Amino acid sequence: MTESRQIHLVRRPNGVPVDADFAVVAVNTPDAGEGEVQLETVLMSVDPYMRPRLNADQPLDRPLLGGGIARVAQSRHAGFREGDLVRHGAGMQERFVSDGRGLLVLKPDPDLPLTVYMHALGGTGITAYGGLLEVGALKDGEQVFVSTAGGAVGSVVAQIAKLKGCYVVGSTGSDDKAAWLRDVAGLDAVINYKTSDLAPALEAATPKGIDVYFENVGGAHLDAALPRMNVRGRIPVCGMISTYNGGGEGVRNLFNLIYGRVRMEGFVASDFPHLRERFETDMTAWLKSGQIKYQETVLDGFERAPEALIGLFEGRNAGKMLVRVRD
Amino acid sequence: MTESRQIHLVRRPNGVPVDADFAVVAVNTPDAGEGEVQLETVLMSVDPYMRPRLNADQPLDRPLLGGGIARVAQSRHAGFREGDLVRHGAGMQERFVSDGRGLLVLKPDPDLPLTVYMHALGGTGITAYGGLLEVGALKDGEQVFVSTAGGAVGSVVAQIAKLKGCYVVGSTGSDDKAAWLRDVAGLDAVINYKTSDLAPALEAATPKGIDVYFENVGGAHLDAALPRMNVRGRIPVCGMISTYNGGGEGVRNLFNLIYGRVRMEGFVASDFPHLRERFETDMTAWLKSGQIKYQETVLDGFERAPEALIGLFEGRNAGKMLVRVRD
Repeated sequence: MTESRQIHLVRRPNGVPVDADFAVVAVNTPDAGEGEVQLETVLMSVDPYMRPRLNADQPLDRPLLGGGIARVAQSRHAGFREGDLVRHGAGMQERFVSDGRGLLVLKPDPDLPLTVYMHALGGTGITAYGGLLEVGALKDGEQVFVSTAGGAVGSVVAQIAKLKGCYVVGSTGSDDKAAWLRDVAGLDAVINYKTSDLAPALEAATPKGIDVYFENVGGAHLDAALPRMNVRGRIPVCGMISTYNGGGEGVRNLFNLIYGRVRMEGFVASDFPHLRERFETDMTAWLKSGQIKYQETVLDGFERAPEALIGLFEGRNAGKMLVRVRD
Repeated sequence: MTESRQIHLVRRPNGVPVDADFAVVAVNTPDAGEGEVQLETVLMSVDPYMRPRLNADQPLDRPLLGGGIARVAQSRHAGFREGDLVRHGAGMQERFVSDGRGLLVLKPDPDLPLTVYMHALGGTGITAYGGLLEVGALKDGEQVFVSTAGGAVGSVVAQIAKLKGCYVVGSTGSDDKAAWLRDVAGLDAVINYKTSDLAPALEAATPKGIDVYFENVGGAHLDAALPRMNVRGRIPVCGMISTYNGGGEGVRNLFNLIYGRVRMEGFVASDFPHLRERFETDMTAWLKSGQIKYQETVLDGFERAPEALIGLFEGRNAGKMLVRVRD
C-alpha cells in the first residue's frame, strides 16, 4: 500500500473549466498482486480533446481520462520488469495498479528526451502525421493552411508539410508563437488571429488558395478557410477547439464545399495503427536531424494538472502541454 | 431572321429573387448560317443551383444561364437534322443559333414523356445517382436521410436508396409533398420541417442513426443531421438551399464530424460522365417499370421562367420545376 493521489472531475464545467471543477484526491494504492504491476506516473499528457469529454463520457469523482508515461514500480507480471517505462491510458493517477492491459512498453531513443514520446512521437504526432498525409491526402508542393499551428498537433502538421515542399500558412494566437513558427519552424506565413482580421489576412496569405486546411478550430477559422479552398481541396477535421467551451459563431460558408468539390473528414489519433511503424521511423529521424522542431510547456507537480488543462484553453501553452510528476 | 425572346437578369437579387430582377426581352434571332443550326426551345429546366449564380457568374442583361431541350428548326450543320431534339446549355432563349458545340442529340424513349429527360433522366437524375452512389458510397440496407426529399434531386435519391434496400427518411416543406413521399414514393418516414421541430423529429425517425445524409439544405437541417451520423457516415453535399438567399443560421454541430469520422464532400452534376451510360440504363429501366416515380410542376409559356424560378425558392413546386415553351 502506497499513499498516492488522483485528479478528479467533481462537477461539469460550464464554459472554460475552472479550478473548482477539479479536486486532487488522496488515495491509497494497493501493492501489485499476482499478475499485476504497480506503476508510478512520470509524465501526463494534457490535450484539447479532454474538454468535450468533461461534459460527456468523463465520470464524476473518478480520475480524469487521459494518457501518460509511467514507470513500473513493482512487477508481479511476466511482461514487465521493475523500471520499465510504459505508455498508458489509465488517466490522471499518481500511482496505480494494472493487470497489464492497455500498457505499451516504451523503449525511448537515448538521443531524444522522454517528453517527445508524449507529443511528436506520441498521440499528437501520429494525429498530425495520419491526419495530414492520409486523411488530408497531402501531395508534395501543395498549398496548406494549419490552424493553431503553434499547438502540439499543428506545429507538427506545419513542419511535415514544409518537409513535403508545401507552401504553409499557420494561424496562432500570440506574437511569440507566431515568431517561433516563422523563425524556427520555417512557415511561409503566419497570422496572429487575435490581432488581425482573419479572413482578409488569410486571403492575402494564400494567393494560390488552399489545397489542404488542417482544421483544429472550427467557427470563424473554418469560415475564413472555406472560400479559399481550391477545387478538390481537403479539410481533415482534427478538432474544433472554438466550440468546445460552448462559444463561437456558427459556420456560414459551407456552400463553398459544393462547387469546390471539397472534402471534410473527421478523424482521431487511434485511426492510424497501420501507419504506426512508418510514423515512428519517419518522426524519430526528423526529430534527431532537427527537421521537426517542437516546443513544450511542462508544469512540474502532479497537482498542477487542472492548472495545465485550464491553461491550455486560455492559450498559455507554447507547443505541447505536459505535467511532469517525477523524473 | 425570326422574332424571339430571352429572359435576362437585369439586377442582382437581394434575398429571394423578385419579378423586377428579370426582364423578358424581345430579340431577332438570325437564320442558321453555314455550319450552324437554329433551335427552338421546347423545355427549360429551373433549378436551385441557379440562385447563387445570380449573384456570381450570371452576367447582367444576358440570357439566364441554364439548360433545356430544343428542336432543330433550321440546319446547315452535318451533325443535325431539322426536327432533331437536342439537350443544350444555351440558357433561357426562346430561339437561338448554334455552331453545334454543347448540343447533344436526344433520342427519347417512346414509352417515356419527354419531360423526364429534364429531371430523372437529366441533370437532376444523374446528380442524385452519382451523389448518392459514388460520393455517398451508399451500401445496401443503410440508414439514409434525404433533405428536400420532395424536390427533383431528393425524390430520386430517396427512391434509389429504397431500391437498394435502405431505411429512408425524408424532409419536406408541405403535407402534400410528405403524403406523396410516404404513399407514392414509399419512404419509411417523412418529416414536414415547417410543422415539426426538425431535430427531435429526426432523432425519433432515425433510431439506428444515419449512414448517409444527402444534403440539399444546410443550416438547421445539417445541424439536426450531424448528431445522428453513424461512425464513418457520409454527407454528400449537393446543395445548401437554406443559404442561397442569404438567410439561415450558422452551423454549430460540425464537431460531430470528428469522433464520427464523418466525411462531407461537395459535388456537382457534371462530375459523373463516367457514370452516364450505367445511369441511363438503370434509370430508364426504373422509370419504365415504375420503380422510380416522379412529380413535375410544368409552367406553360416562355415568359413564365422568372415566376418558375421565384416559385422554386418559395417551395411552390412539387418535384421538378419546368417551363414548357412549345410541344
